[in-house]
Amino acid sequence: MQFGVNYVPRKNWFYSWNALDKKAIEEDYEAIAGIGLDHIRIFPLWHIIQPNPALISPQAIDDLLYVIDAAHAKGLRVTVDIFQGHLSSFDFLPSWVLSWHKRNIFTDPFVIQAQEKLIRTLAKECAHRDMIDGLSLGNEIIQFAADRHPHKMDLSIEQAEKWLDGHRRIAKEEFPHGEFTFSYDDDLLFDSQQPFTPELALRYSDSITIHSWIFGIVGPHWGKDHEVLGYFTRYLLEIVNAWQKELGVNKSLWLQEVGAPRNYLSAGSVVPFVEKTIIQASQIPNLNRITWWCSHDVSRKLSDFPEVEYDLGLFTEHGEIKPEGEWIRDWIHAGCPKETHSPKEKIFIDIPSVHDYHLRHELRADGHIFKQWVDAINHGCEPELRVRR
Amino acid sequence: MQFGVNYVPRKNWFYSWNALDKKAIEEDYEAIAGIGLDHIRIFPLWHIIQPNPALISPQAIDDLLYVIDAAHAKGLRVTVDIFQGHLSSFDFLPSWVLSWHKRNIFTDPFVIQAQEKLIRTLAKECAHRDMIDGLSLGNEIIQFAADRHPHKMDLSIEQAEKWLDGHRRIAKEEFPHGEFTFSYDDDLLFDSQQPFTPELALRYSDSITIHSWIFGIVGPHWGKDHEVLGYFTRYLLEIVNAWQKELGVNKSLWLQEVGAPRNYLSAGSVVPFVEKTIIQASQIPNLNRITWWCSHDVSRKLSDFPEVEYDLGLFTEHGEIKPEGEWIRDWIHAGCPKETHSPKEKIFIDIPSVHDYHLRHELRADGHIFKQWVDAINHGCEPELRVRR
Repeated sequence: MQFGVNYVPRKNWFYSWNALDKKAIEEDYEAIAGIGLDHIRIFPLWHIIQPNPALISPQAIDDLLYVIDAAHAKGLRVTVDIFQGHLSSFDFLPSWVLSWHKRNIFTDPFVIQAQEKLIRTLAKECAHRDMIDGLSLGNEIIQFAADRHPHKMDLSIEQAEKWLDGHRRIAKEEFPHGEFTFSYDDDLLFDSQQPFTPELALRYSDSITIHSWIFGIVGPHWGKDHEVLGYFTRYLLEIVNAWQKELGVNKSLWLQEVGAPRNYLSAGSVVPFVEKTIIQASQIPNLNRITWWCSHDVSRKLSDFPEVEYDLGLFTEHGEIKPEGEWIRDWIHAGCPKETHSPKEKIFIDIPSVHDYHLRHELRADGHIFKQWVDAINHGCEPELRVRR
Repeated sequence: MQFGVNYVPRKNWFYSWNALDKKAIEEDYEAIAGIGLDHIRIFPLWHIIQPNPALISPQAIDDLLYVIDAAHAKGLRVTVDIFQGHLSSFDFLPSWVLSWHKRNIFTDPFVIQAQEKLIRTLAKECAHRDMIDGLSLGNEIIQFAADRHPHKMDLSIEQAEKWLDGHRRIAKEEFPHGEFTFSYDDDLLFDSQQPFTPELALRYSDSITIHSWIFGIVGPHWGKDHEVLGYFTRYLLEIVNAWQKELGVNKSLWLQEVGAPRNYLSAGSVVPFVEKTIIQASQIPNLNRITWWCSHDVSRKLSDFPEVEYDLGLFTEHGEIKPEGEWIRDWIHAGCPKETHSPKEKIFIDIPSVHDYHLRHELRADGHIFKQWVDAINHGCEPELRVRR
């Protein structure tokens, strides 16, 4: 198992892209590598790296390469997420797609051309660096096409596919040995209106990414500290595998984001949740990478983050390791042990086909499928999700 | 007459705030000072200087102070415009007032508190620097409350006054000897729905700023190269003075932005327009500062600017002086000579009271008042705008 973190700079969060503090970054990496983590995912801000459609900031590229090379120096592998886009409740679209320049970031040919330019530039730079695993496309960028977004952009499934396919081609042209992934949130699995469908994600991503957040539906529905919360990540992974099976593919899974949000976990529940989440997820044979969200707490000196976003680090804002960081450190040091199980009775649970994207809501954690699945586990059985015929 | 420019960095436009090129800036200043200009107005981008409500970027402050001190070194005085906000068609609001964090930048107490923090910080820094004339509040920021804005923020006149008054107080507390101005566009004079009214601008600004752009109404209505275009600036100044007279004040006028947009001026009309605009404006006795828009053309390597924005510099994107720059240089070297007139017949033209803000549209350059005023000039008379009783 590869285990890493989404790197949130301890000093000045992602605002640090405007004014890199190299010493602080190196200290952060020291801490990250020091507990046995082997990779990071990093997030250049789109409006800083490409302030104008025709300008990819040389300074921002230099900064990005520094952030990569400094990670390398500590033995950390890196995935670069290309478009942010969105981070921790804040949207960071460049001025040339907003307001008077309002443009659809998925369909406007002018925007797509500019995005291609950025992907090509980053892919070229990354292709020369051994410690880069690959490029990931847009942190939870699908939310800009979600009904829940305050400025939703219209998008059809066909257009979503064109966008994803086109950008993947560019990345592969310049960085053929790099892994190309697509960084969607769980709307992809649960929102029947979301034009990015599971099928697209499975087809156009080299490994399949999962973002597992209990504050979305499972926490609000089942309640704080509920025992089911620790099963949620495994459930997501099993859904994806059921669909892979349906399509006859078996790509590896990357748990690209998972964290322990305090709005649904009391202090005493955090470590048990982390343990349960990781141990349950580890049962999935093709899961080979976990990237915790996140490395460092957001400084309390910064304001306006949703309360839950402040406390997601494995380290505090002062760089001290937190109990969940200690648990993960110890688990990695022990060789990422999995639980061994005696054989159990299998219970099959039907889920909608990957092609029935309009039925995705049935899979939500407040629905009957999740409940059946959890009940099976609680009854000592082995549930298996399978696509209904 | 003080004559200066709105400083648009030749290299990378205002994106340069992300990655200052000190040598390029010094070259720009050399050129600006070299043609006899004595001041600049500068535009830190709000989202860079205050990426989080609680974070005023030390790097951005250092950069700003460098830009100021380097101007000083070339003998240029400086006004710092506080909130951008808006520049050349692009909006640059910080992420913490957009999208999921959508907030009204004029009325939300949280935003106002953050703005006060920025104003206080900048005013404190500026107060120690002799070459700083003062602070100006928000380049054309009133557009965010204009009906024409794509994401208009609701605002009453009372709220607009509170915002302006509060921010002025903060600036004055920290920088009492600094000039405090308010950088509105001509919606203030012509848009009857605009909650920022002329009365507020006259009351809360130490000198009265005017932005004179022929591409708004006068150009589209009267046509490219029309002789009235060169009178437009003087008309704006005279409106303001008529209202000053009504209120019994006589503040000095600052023509804070004026330029020669090519969409309403053929190549051969540019210099005659510049000359006429400046000579006509110079007749206004309390006009003591002109700040041309702008110093340098926007590089053609940058995309997505409205065509008109590329060619507004006194210098090309390569730093060569343009014909309008030469005319201004020569006029300054000649001591800013005004035309002498023999006494003419006065014609009084009635305009709405400053209190009748709902009648501002009557003053638009496509209305009868402007036509009467121009006709009087064309008939060799001296028109005087006066408030009707």
